[in-house]
Amino acid sequence: MTRHELISRIRSTGSYLCVGLDSDLTKIPKHLQNAKDPIFEFNRQIIDATRDHCVAYKLNTAFYEADGAKGWETMEKTVNYIPKEHFKIADAKRGDIGNTSTQYARAFFETLAFDAITVAPYMGEDSVRPFLEYKDKWTILLGLTSNAGAKDFELQPAGDGLLYEKVLTTAAKWGSPENLMYVIGATQAEAFTHIRELTPDHFYLVPGVGAQGGSLEAISKKAMNADVGLLVNASRAIIYASNKEDFAEAAQKISADYQTEMAGYLSQTKLTVD
Amino acid sequence: MTRHELISRIRSTGSYLCVGLDSDLTKIPKHLQNAKDPIFEFNRQIIDATRDHCVAYKLNTAFYEADGAKGWETMEKTVNYIPKEHFKIADAKRGDIGNTSTQYARAFFETLAFDAITVAPYMGEDSVRPFLEYKDKWTILLGLTSNAGAKDFELQPAGDGLLYEKVLTTAAKWGSPENLMYVIGATQAEAFTHIRELTPDHFYLVPGVGAQGGSLEAISKKAMNADVGLLVNASRAIIYASNKEDFAEAAQKISADYQTEMAGYLSQTKLTVD
Repeated sequence: MTRHELISRIRSTGSYLCVGLDSDLTKIPKHLQNAKDPIFEFNRQIIDATRDHCVAYKLNTAFYEADGAKGWETMEKTVNYIPKEHFKIADAKRGDIGNTSTQYARAFFETLAFDAITVAPYMGEDSVRPFLEYKDKWTILLGLTSNAGAKDFELQPAGDGLLYEKVLTTAAKWGSPENLMYVIGATQAEAFTHIRELTPDHFYLVPGVGAQGGSLEAISKKAMNADVGLLVNASRAIIYASNKEDFAEAAQKISADYQTEMAGYLSQTKLTVD
Repeated sequence: MTRHELISRIRSTGSYLCVGLDSDLTKIPKHLQNAKDPIFEFNRQIIDATRDHCVAYKLNTAFYEADGAKGWETMEKTVNYIPKEHFKIADAKRGDIGNTSTQYARAFFETLAFDAITVAPYMGEDSVRPFLEYKDKWTILLGLTSNAGAKDFELQPAGDGLLYEKVLTTAAKWGSPENLMYVIGATQAEAFTHIRELTPDHFYLVPGVGAQGGSLEAISKKAMNADVGLLVNASRAIIYASNKEDFAEAAQKISADYQTEMAGYLSQTKLTVD
C-alpha cells in the first residue's frame, strides 16, 4: 500500500485506528474455545465488527508463535481474511544481519501478505535495508517504545542527544516517509512535540492507548501533521472489551468510539488538500 | 541445560562449536529437492554428520519462517531431532513489551524445545525479563554484532562508553552467568579482550567465523575464560561446504577440523578443575 493510498483511506474512514490482534487462547470468550480454530474464529468476528471503524490491523506475531506451526497457520488465515483496503502490520520486531533480514522480509512480505513489519534498530542499517527494498511495503522501526524499559537504553544519552533521537534521525536517511514509519509509544506523550520536530513527515505507529494508559487526545494534538502521520493502535481495550458472547459487539462499540473521537481531531487539523 | 552441564559437555567433546542451521531451499543440494521435506532431510543429515564434533546447534528462525507454517513445522521437527545432550539455540532476535516477550518465551521454551533464544536489547529490562525467568533456559542478548551496521548504534558513544558496553554492563544486573549470554561477533576480534574484562564470567555466542571472516584463533586466545565461556558458531562454512551429494561428508570434515583446532585452544587454557 502506498502512502497516498493510506492517507486517502484515513480520510474516507475518518479514522486512523489500528486494531491489534494480540489474540490469546486464555483470554478469548469461553464459547469459542471449541471452534476448530478458536483464535481464527475470534479474529474473524473481531475483524467483521471493527472493519468499518479502523484503517489497519496489527498482528502480534508472539501470540501466534506461542502455538507453533498451528499458530502460524492461524496468522496466515487471519491476514488473508483482512479486507484488502486495510493496512496489514506484522508486529514482529525482527532484525538481523542482511542475509537473514532478507529471509524475514520474504516471510512477511511474500509468504504472508503483510504491508508492513515492525523492526528493531539495534543492529543498524544493513539489518533494516532488506525490508526497505520492497516496493509499496513499509518498515516500522522501533523509536521510543511505550514500556518502562524504554528508560534503560532508548532514553539514555547517546552522542548529542538520546539514543531514540539518534535512531530516528539516522534511520531517516535510510528510508523515506514513503516506506519508513516509527513506533512511538502513546505513554510518551510529553515527547511527541519534539519527536514531530525531528521527523516532520513520517508516520508513527502509536501503541499504548487503552490498556497501557496513553491518551489519544494528547498524541493527536501534538503529533498529527498535514498528512495525518498517525496510526494509533489499541489491542486489549478493543478485542477484550467483553469476554462474553457479546465480545464482537463490544469491540464494535469501542472501535466506533475511537473513530468518532479521531474524526473530531482530523476535522480540527489543517490537512493537505488532496 | 545448566551452565555446569554445558561446560562438562564442552570438555568431554573438546569442542565449543555451534553449527548454524541457516538452511535455505535455494542452497541445499539438488538431489534433496524432491524429498517430502527437503530442509528437514538436509538438517537431519547435517546433524548426523556433525553431532560428534559440536556441542550446540543454532536454528536461524528467519530461514524457517520464510516458508510459513510449513517452515515452522520443519523447525519443530529439526529441534526435536537434535540429540538431547546438545545445546539448542533459537536465533530469533526477539524482544517486545513484557506480556509479548512472555508469549515469545512460551513459543521457544515450551512449544518448541529450545534451551536458549537470542534477544534484542533495545526495549530494555522488561522486554528481556520474561526469558530470564525460565529455569535452566538461557537468554542470549545481542551485545556487539558481526555486521557492518554495528557501527550505526552499537559502537556509538552512549554515556561513559559505547552503547554495546552499556548493554553488556546493564544487562549483567538483570541476569547472571547462569542464565545470560551475549552475542559478540567474531569480526570484532580487536574488542574481545576489553569485552572479557567487562563481563569476565559470561558465555559469548560468537557468530561470524567462516563466511563472515572472523578468526577462531584470535577469539579463542582473547576471550576464553576458565569456564571456556565461548560458543563459536559457523553456519554457511559448514552446512554449505559442498552443494553436491557429499555435502554431509564435507560438513563432517569441516566440523571435525574446527573441533581439532578448538581442542588445541582448550588444552592451552587453564580451565577450572571440575
